Amino acid sequence: MSPEAISPDRTKVGWIGTGVMGKPMCGHILRAGYRVIVHNRTKAKAEELIARGAKWAGSPREVAEEADVIFTMVGYPEDVREVYLGPNGILAGAKEGSIMIDMSTSQPSLAAEIYSKARAIGAHALDAPVSGGDIGAKEATLSIMIGGDRDIAERVKPLFQLMGKSIRYMGPAGSGQSTKLCNQILIASTMIGVVECLLYAHKSGLDLMDVIAAVGSGAAGCWSINNLGPRIVRRDFDPGFMVEHFVKDMGIALEEARRMNLALPGLAMAHQFYVALKAKGKGRLGTQALALVLEELNNARIEGGPNR
Amino acid sequence: MSPEAISPDRTKVGWIGTGVMGKPMCGHILRAGYRVIVHNRTKAKAEELIARGAKWAGSPREVAEEADVIFTMVGYPEDVREVYLGPNGILAGAKEGSIMIDMSTSQPSLAAEIYSKARAIGAHALDAPVSGGDIGAKEATLSIMIGGDRDIAERVKPLFQLMGKSIRYMGPAGSGQSTKLCNQILIASTMIGVVECLLYAHKSGLDLMDVIAAVGSGAAGCWSINNLGPRIVRRDFDPGFMVEHFVKDMGIALEEARRMNLALPGLAMAHQFYVALKAKGKGRLGTQALALVLEELNNARIEGGPNR
Repeated sequence: MSPEAISPDRTKVGWIGTGVMGKPMCGHILRAGYRVIVHNRTKAKAEELIARGAKWAGSPREVAEEADVIFTMVGYPEDVREVYLGPNGILAGAKEGSIMIDMSTSQPSLAAEIYSKARAIGAHALDAPVSGGDIGAKEATLSIMIGGDRDIAERVKPLFQLMGKSIRYMGPAGSGQSTKLCNQILIASTMIGVVECLLYAHKSGLDLMDVIAAVGSGAAGCWSINNLGPRIVRRDFDPGFMVEHFVKDMGIALEEARRMNLALPGLAMAHQFYVALKAKGKGRLGTQALALVLEELNNARIEGGPNR
Repeated sequence: MSPEAISPDRTKVGWIGTGVMGKPMCGHILRAGYRVIVHNRTKAKAEELIARGAKWAGSPREVAEEADVIFTMVGYPEDVREVYLGPNGILAGAKEGSIMIDMSTSQPSLAAEIYSKARAIGAHALDAPVSGGDIGAKEATLSIMIGGDRDIAERVKPLFQLMGKSIRYMGPAGSGQSTKLCNQILIASTMIGVVECLLYAHKSGLDLMDVIAAVGSGAAGCWSINNLGPRIVRRDFDPGFMVEHFVKDMGIALEEARRMNLALPGLAMAHQFYVALKAKGKGRLGTQALALVLEELNNARIEGGPNR
């Protein structure tokens, strides 16, 4: 791709990974009029995008052979590695000057490795994980945290703007992933606080919605108590963000932290409770299902009614 | 006191405890035109209020002998016990129909005991701890969480409105204290998340203020990262809320939780780190000084500059 401005008539976009996040994100790019080439491990999940005009490609390599900008949104770091560095991966097919952007939550070190290997063939790579969940993906209100070269991040901004409302350049390759992990580290201990607060409130005979209102608006307030707290009280454990993905993210953060000689006891404890939750077969519930582990630990059940 | 409406010409207000919180709170009541009788362990800390027209009394008992509504804002549960139940305490002097209101953070069980003993002499008691710190006390923007009889809470509302902006009735005696402890339980683990997030960000070479902006506005967002995060980055450890008071509050919550057969591992861990911080002689710093403990644990120092 010549360093021209990105536009629907000049830029061919590749998209790999059309799951619960990737499909709506790719949909926004299609809707804006771009020619899109898609690939997904399970083709059925791409059919809707194909019906809307996306062209199917049989492998990440084939996507890369045609596209100027290639997005990836897959599950685990192993998948990212396979999709970029495998025998039929993006690097095997990428054109000189092309830009590859991994929006999965993955390892900062892997992002740096992909960046270097892209540079070696005259291409560019960004890591650009997101927060905001499936609703953010559908409503194009994601927060996007970008690592890589600043000028490349600038160049593809028109595409990011189709998917997110907060688009932030964080630093060199891996910095997007590192920022996303900071986000998950903060949420991990916060969720422990949310569930312990509600357990204590229940045991004290308080009205749980009154407690959420009282603590949620002051110095203890957080998104989680105000948004996930009421779901716990209603025993609505449907996923906004799934336990198994959170377990993955915390695992990456702990592994990277160990590599940096950094002890994070709060994160480690939260991780253990979420691993236990997954072990109970609850991996596909939302992260607020942490309540189930601490309830079982305490032989208690968080319920809304006050004792008064 | 007859159950007439509270007003400056009919109601004499007693105030016990004129420290960093109590002094400005009592000042708001004086300013509204009420006659106020004050007592404090150290008389010097009451001199400013006395100069503004408050009348000095030599003991809590003497305050209670004169006042219709008696507020207390003291340090520890032992102080609350002494001020209410000691030989020169409020209960020894309280008039029939008087209303005594403890705004200290203390034990729910002690609040229930005071409530019963007040009823036995034909008086009323409320527990009404606050959040919002010294700034909230000065600016009359405290959140007030009330336990006791609803009609009594309603009757003294005009006085609460002089001190706070959010005034919430939470249930029977002790419910105000229980709600305040829920608040502290939630903050405890959140603070672990905040410090671990910033440590990880620093080790990853990210710009810390960029990270706070990125994570603070989404699903990981909380009051603590947005307000105390920047202070940690600036290494401003001055107290909004003091470590030693937080250690006290968490200790009460853990003791009450044990009494209720409730295990709160996140709270227990946060408590240990704060006890360690206090042991280092940092008890009079603000709660954001938790950073110092986790920095020492990791032989690291959270600093703002990015490595890019």
